[in-house]
Amino acid sequence: MGDHTQWVAVDWGTSNVRAWGISADGLTTFSAESDKGMSRLSPAQFSDALGDLLAGELSANDSGSTEIIVCGMAGARQGWLEAPYIDAPANLNTLLHGAVRPTDPSGRFSPSILPGVAQRSAGREDVMRGEETQLLGLLALQPGFSGVVVLPGTHSKWVLVDDGKLTRFSTALTGELFELLSAHSVLRHTVNGTQSGEEADEGFAAGVDIGIETPDQLMASLFRARAASLLSGRSAEWCRGYLSGLLIGSEIGAHRSWLSGVELPLIGSRKLAERYRTAFSRAGTPSRLIDATEATLAGLKQARMQRA
Amino acid sequence: MGDHTQWVAVDWGTSNVRAWGISADGLTTFSAESDKGMSRLSPAQFSDALGDLLAGELSANDSGSTEIIVCGMAGARQGWLEAPYIDAPANLNTLLHGAVRPTDPSGRFSPSILPGVAQRSAGREDVMRGEETQLLGLLALQPGFSGVVVLPGTHSKWVLVDDGKLTRFSTALTGELFELLSAHSVLRHTVNGTQSGEEADEGFAAGVDIGIETPDQLMASLFRARAASLLSGRSAEWCRGYLSGLLIGSEIGAHRSWLSGVELPLIGSRKLAERYRTAFSRAGTPSRLIDATEATLAGLKQARMQRA
Repeated sequence: MGDHTQWVAVDWGTSNVRAWGISADGLTTFSAESDKGMSRLSPAQFSDALGDLLAGELSANDSGSTEIIVCGMAGARQGWLEAPYIDAPANLNTLLHGAVRPTDPSGRFSPSILPGVAQRSAGREDVMRGEETQLLGLLALQPGFSGVVVLPGTHSKWVLVDDGKLTRFSTALTGELFELLSAHSVLRHTVNGTQSGEEADEGFAAGVDIGIETPDQLMASLFRARAASLLSGRSAEWCRGYLSGLLIGSEIGAHRSWLSGVELPLIGSRKLAERYRTAFSRAGTPSRLIDATEATLAGLKQARMQRA
Repeated sequence: MGDHTQWVAVDWGTSNVRAWGISADGLTTFSAESDKGMSRLSPAQFSDALGDLLAGELSANDSGSTEIIVCGMAGARQGWLEAPYIDAPANLNTLLHGAVRPTDPSGRFSPSILPGVAQRSAGREDVMRGEETQLLGLLALQPGFSGVVVLPGTHSKWVLVDDGKLTRFSTALTGELFELLSAHSVLRHTVNGTQSGEEADEGFAAGVDIGIETPDQLMASLFRARAASLLSGRSAEWCRGYLSGLLIGSEIGAHRSWLSGVELPLIGSRKLAERYRTAFSRAGTPSRLIDATEATLAGLKQARMQRA
């Protein structure tokens, strides 16, 4: 077999899509990505978008259709084909059983789209699509893991994993709020400007501490960033760090009861996960970084192994 | 004198400007408004913008320049002329003493711009411009008032007034967050749609209760609005009410220690202040509405009476 592509792992997000060819030995034969995210495609366009993405990567002598395992927003209601949520507590070891299989009119692909997870208990309604695959990947990378996992991002997820099951989770709008506030709110005057020196780190630490201590004051602390800038002449960089720290700190403060002092896996992009690690250390919680891409790929591989 | 305009009261906001002619008897001789808010004017343009606004309103036989009392953003750093903040605790009965007087090259106007108020204590940095004049108006409408006042808005203010002094205040980004989240965030899919029936009130009440009870959970409760809509099929109107209620409830919850059960004045536009009254009633706090325009005008009149 060698480096012959046996199947293709796909992470289909809202804005982007990434694919990896996988050999029978589990090695990556190629990787590709494009900006043909779910939000830019109608259901009928997914097959061609995948064809474009994989063009030239699959051998001409591949007979039949190529097996594709997909996670993420391709399974949303407005995606390729809706993969109904499985309910929490959700057994990650049978994730593939909840997959849907869109028919590919071109006959080139045989896709399975993994389901997201829903939490339906009143007052705790929540949903995820994509993170469940990263969590399955965590279980592959670290067999037997149980505990709290945090997945920082536009919509940060806090997840409790117990004995292979995703038992409870909570989503915070942290990343999206940071983008909105720094681009569109009155704070844009405060946080955008020339960048200089180490001040962002100082501001970040100050914001984290306030957020962790008084997450209930977020609505007021946000405006305070503006006021402090007007009154103290803090630099834009300090204020940008402060806003980021305040939001991340408030997220941690809101989930304080989830923390036990045990080391926490952080699954995310390096830069953002490093920020969370700094913030968690200020809350007295040790954490370790797990690269998001590595977790996704490990999860897609693990899901494929769940075939009956 | 009769209905002859003696002076002009001006509320110069970020987006709009409103003016009222006032007679020697304190009656309103005319009112005018335009969208020439502070954000659209350079310092040199304020005089002409005022001239355009008052064109035809001032008698041709007015000799000399017309006295103008201005509150609001015209006194900001990027406004007509910066009126430096006075510091809290601030004596509202000497507000005019902190006014600045820009020179009007046209010689038509003799303007005084009232100062805003700053709170400089570390960890409580805050600023206001315009609300101090409404609070002075409250003291004119209700002599001897002491207690907590709430001014709902884009940036809601909570203010403690004691014996004519503005002793402490706190600003919440409530209105701005609602606009940002409903227009630009993932929640836009949830809260915008066909409007129908009484569901907004139901959603509002549900959101208020959660906000009041768990203001520390705001970052997570926001995403829950999206999840609940996906899972429960709540209408867009219900979700829009819920988002509004959640933010207002979180603002109230963040300021819970300010509440004593005593009736609270709410200074704001009728529609928004009514929402806050509903929310406060769910927190067990009675409140009464004071029209924002009435308070502003009363405050500008009262400020003018502070001339030495």
